[in-house]
Order: sequence, then C-alpha cells, then structure tokens
Amino acid sequence: MRVLITGGGGFLGQKLARRLAADGHLRGGAISELVLIDLATPAAPAPAPFPVTATACDISDAAALAPVFARPFAVIFHLAAVVSGAAEADFDLGLRVNLFGTLNILQAARHGGTCPVVVYASSVAAHGGEEPLTITDGLELNPQTSYGSQKVIGELLLNDMSRRGFLDGRGLRLPTVSIRPGRANAAASSFMSSIFRDTMQGGSANCPVGRDYEIWHSAPRTVIANLIHAATLDGAAFGPNRCLNLPGRTDTVGAMIAAMTLVAGPEPASRITWNHDPVIEAIVMGWRNRVVPNKALALGFRADASFADSVRWFLEDDIEKVR
Amino acid sequence: MRVLITGGGGFLGQKLARRLAADGHLRGGAISELVLIDLATPAAPAPAPFPVTATACDISDAAALAPVFARPFAVIFHLAAVVSGAAEADFDLGLRVNLFGTLNILQAARHGGTCPVVVYASSVAAHGGEEPLTITDGLELNPQTSYGSQKVIGELLLNDMSRRGFLDGRGLRLPTVSIRPGRANAAASSFMSSIFRDTMQGGSANCPVGRDYEIWHSAPRTVIANLIHAATLDGAAFGPNRCLNLPGRTDTVGAMIAAMTLVAGPEPASRITWNHDPVIEAIVMGWRNRVVPNKALALGFRADASFADSVRWFLEDDIEKVR
Repeated sequence: MRVLITGGGGFLGQKLARRLAADGHLRGGAISELVLIDLATPAAPAPAPFPVTATACDISDAAALAPVFARPFAVIFHLAAVVSGAAEADFDLGLRVNLFGTLNILQAARHGGTCPVVVYASSVAAHGGEEPLTITDGLELNPQTSYGSQKVIGELLLNDMSRRGFLDGRGLRLPTVSIRPGRANAAASSFMSSIFRDTMQGGSANCPVGRDYEIWHSAPRTVIANLIHAATLDGAAFGPNRCLNLPGRTDTVGAMIAAMTLVAGPEPASRITWNHDPVIEAIVMGWRNRVVPNKALALGFRADASFADSVRWFLEDDIEKVR
Repeated sequence: MRVLITGGGGFLGQKLARRLAADGHLRGGAISELVLIDLATPAAPAPAPFPVTATACDISDAAALAPVFARPFAVIFHLAAVVSGAAEADFDLGLRVNLFGTLNILQAARHGGTCPVVVYASSVAAHGGEEPLTITDGLELNPQTSYGSQKVIGELLLNDMSRRGFLDGRGLRLPTVSIRPGRANAAASSFMSSIFRDTMQGGSANCPVGRDYEIWHSAPRTVIANLIHAATLDGAAFGPNRCLNLPGRTDTVGAMIAAMTLVAGPEPASRITWNHDPVIEAIVMGWRNRVVPNKALALGFRADASFADSVRWFLEDDIEKVR
C-alpha cells in the first residue's frame, strides 16, 4: 500500500514517517511506498523497509499536486497547515493553505478512485466562543481564530466527502502537542513546548502567560499512536461525524514545570522568563483546555498518563544539545 | 445607504426587494440604491422610491463581482445558492457556488472597507447525523447533505470574518420556506410547497413522503421579516456566534393539508398524488424537523402562528392561476 504524509517535513510528519518505517506496515498490510510532501523537501526516514519519496510541493497549488497523485494512495495523513499565529496574522494565507490546500488534497484523494483512508489533523482550536468551558462531544464548534475556523471547514469537507464515498475520512482535534521538538514557530502555542524543550536543551524561553494557565496537551508519542490508530479503525466506527476530540491532559503551566523539575532537575525551570504577551494571551485564552473526549476513548484512542512521561519521552526521543 | 441582494431573482430575493421598496429605509436610514444580482438578470421591484440596478452576475466568478462591488454596500443580503437537490447531484457545482461564491461575496464585502452588514441565508439542512432529533442551540452541526455542509462552511467564514472586523455578519438557518411561490425546483424540499401551491393554483403535485412526515417550516412573509430583523439588530447582540436557528413550526404533511383544506376548501388536497420517492426521502429524512430556537426568540426573531396563516398569505400575496 502507498502512503502519503502532507506536512511531511514537520515534526509530526517526521515522527510519523519514522514510526511507519519502524513498523513497515499499516492497516494490516505492508507499506509499498511512503511519499512525504512539504513546502521544502522533507528528510526521508532511514532506514526504511520500503522506498520513500520526499518532494517539495505547495498543497495550495492543485496543479503541483497532480504528479504527486499520479498513482493512488491507500492512506493519506493530511498534517500540512499554516499554524495559528500565522493564519491570524495573514487571513488570506491561512485560507489558501488551510482551506484551499485541504480541499486540493481531498479532491486529489477523491479522484484517485480508491476511496483512500484520509487522517486529517484538526485542532482543539476548533473550540471556543459560545461553547462551555469544559468541552464534551457534540457541541457546536465556535472557533475564535482563523486557524480554528479553517480547521473546522476542513472537517466539514472531510465529513461530506466521506458521506459521499469519495474518501474514508477520520478527523482528529489534536490537543497542543507538548513537548514539540525543533524550534519555536509562529504557533501561538509555541511557548507550550519551548519553556520545556529550550530550557532542557540548555537555552532559555519565555512564558507569555501565568503559572495558573491551563494547557490541554498530549505528548508526540501519544499523538503519533493516535494518528496510526485513526488510520487503523474501520471508518464506519466513527459514525456520521468522522471528526472528534482526541484525548489529552489538562495541567497548569506550573504543574508541568514541576513535572519537568522532577524528571530533569531544577536548572531548566530557572531559565524560563516570564514576560507577559497580550497578543499570544488573547489567542490562547480563547482556546479550551478542559475536554471530555468520550467518543475518542470509546474508540480506543489513547490518553497521556502524566506530563512527567512526556518529559521522559522528550529526553529519550528528541533532546538536542544547542549549547 | 446602498443595499445588495444576491440571488435577487429568487422568490425570497424578489419578495425582499419588494419589501425594501415598500419600506424605503433599512436600519434607520434611507436606501439610496438597491442592487439585485442573479445568474439571469432579476426583475426590479416597481414602484421603488430609490434607483434599482438589476444585473446578471455569477457569484462563483470573482472577476464578475468586481464591478458590482465598485462602490461599497452598507447592507448585503446573501441569498444566492445552489439548492439541496442540485448540490447533491453535482458536488463540484455546489462547492463552486455555495462555498467559493459565498467566499467571493464575503471577500468583496471585506474589501469595500465599510464593514458592511451581511445577512447570510443558512439552512436547517445544517443539522443532521449525530445530532439529537430535537435541535437546540449549541449542538455540533453534522449536516448530511453537501448543501448543508457548504452552508455551514459559509457560517464559519461569516463568523471568522465578523470576528476579525472585516464585515458584520448575521447567519440565519432558515426552515423550509412554505408556501414558496413559483415553480417546482431541484430542492429536495420542493414538494413541501408544491403540494399546496400547485394544487391551489389548479394543478396537481406529488407528495414523495407519507402524511406523517413532519416539516420544519416558515412562511415567506415571516422569513422576510426575519431577514430584515437580522439586518436591523446590533451585530454584537448575536455574541461570538453570529449564526442561529430561525424560528419555524413543526407540522405533519397531513396537518398542513388539513389547514389548506380549512382555508381553501377540499379541492386542492384531492389533486395531490402520493408516489413515494426514495431519493427525495433519503435526503429529507436526514434533516431535522423539531427545533427549539431560544437564541433567535430572545433576539426578537418571529415565529409563525399557524400554517393556516401561511395559506392565507399565499392566497393574498402569491397565487397564480395556471389553468
């Protein structure tokens, strides 16, 4: 089976590619080829028991996607997106990639003629506004960012095209992924990883919100396991709504720092600065940080047991010494 | 103030134009010009106390919209859409008009620089799937038609662009409008008017569902009053979610026929045929027909008192003798 990852150069795309390379199979079948696309040519996982094609491709350009889809895929992981801060700074850029880019991927998937499994990364940013503070299944989505709005539009397209039998979609509203490896980026949630990652790597990082701010989060290992699980399930198990809230954990910034200190000692926390940023705060205060993901739990998606695990997994999987 | 109606040649667009011509004002100001656009050049209401420009324009063509928006509008009623049956028969046509056409209208409204009031006709077809049988405010929208999905995508764009201050949107999920004047069309709900309209006009009409089928409906007069009310309200009154369920009535086909017989005598009902249509039924059985529109009622939107009123209003406003 041929598998595609969009946003294949991102940290989730790279981790997913390495996991697929380690597994060699998906949905009970051997993977015959893995294709990774991103704006810049992604790194290929090595070693891999199957050929890997890594290509630069702008998903907002339907013509550029045509050669990628010249042969059909059995499974597509659609992770590519303009992140929250960038989509808020540039409305048209967010529309182009998050709405039109997603539609281009779904239309290309549809026209492959194989009704492929499409696993779509939506976001907890789908929630906000008039929704209650604690999110349960079945609430009217009222996102308060352009990123969140565009993610929900993708959910609607995924659901409708699944209903029509064009593709077999599964949409997961990801918690903030922490601890994300790599560099700080334009996501408003960037600090939710950098205050742990950058300080454990010997650098410093700023926390733009208070210690009492609650984060709805999940570790990269857990999110990758849930993306694989989403691809593995029978699509009908999702019911008429193929999109759901993934499990995660609610912890305050302070409790997460304490967990880091427990695992990694007191030094990293001493390198966190506390300069309030009202722009970041305005975005993240509009998100929800308490979610009761009953549908996902019933379908066998995994929750994190502790943030201390996330710290340990970061030290095992991802830490880079930057000085 | 300049006012635009998209779908200005449709029955709601025409009734709204006549109402605006009768009123002469909107939102407490005199209307200086009314512009009607539709695929075919719409009829202009006559007489009107202001100039009326009626133009053929395909909203899915952004370039064709540019001259329409050469001068900004204070109020835009966006009613144009590919109806449910047609959007189900041709997915790409529905996307082109209902998604891209709506986005074109909203982007043109945004770039006028006046933050215009935009009243958007969404639909009860937004509801379905995993939602409970009785719809209340705040439920996750799970439409089971492409038309409904595209309408909800428009709601998300309207909400996000309102939040950003690009425009001042208000989205109304219309019940089935009955009794709709004119001719049968490709809407799956077409029979919900034709079994009354066509039979009272001396013709016959088929009912593709049983007498016990419940319809969530509202009369054209009520819907027009609610569209005007939506334009008149302060946008902030809607809260972070600018889109809501309009009031309507739940009645069975049988009860509606009895109301027609009460007002118009027994002859029309005798001209209804009862040939079951599984395609129509599959669509309309996926809709919801019991709605508790508390938010709309609190904002002063109107409900219908009886279907007998709708029959009387049809006889006063719309009946055409076709034979």
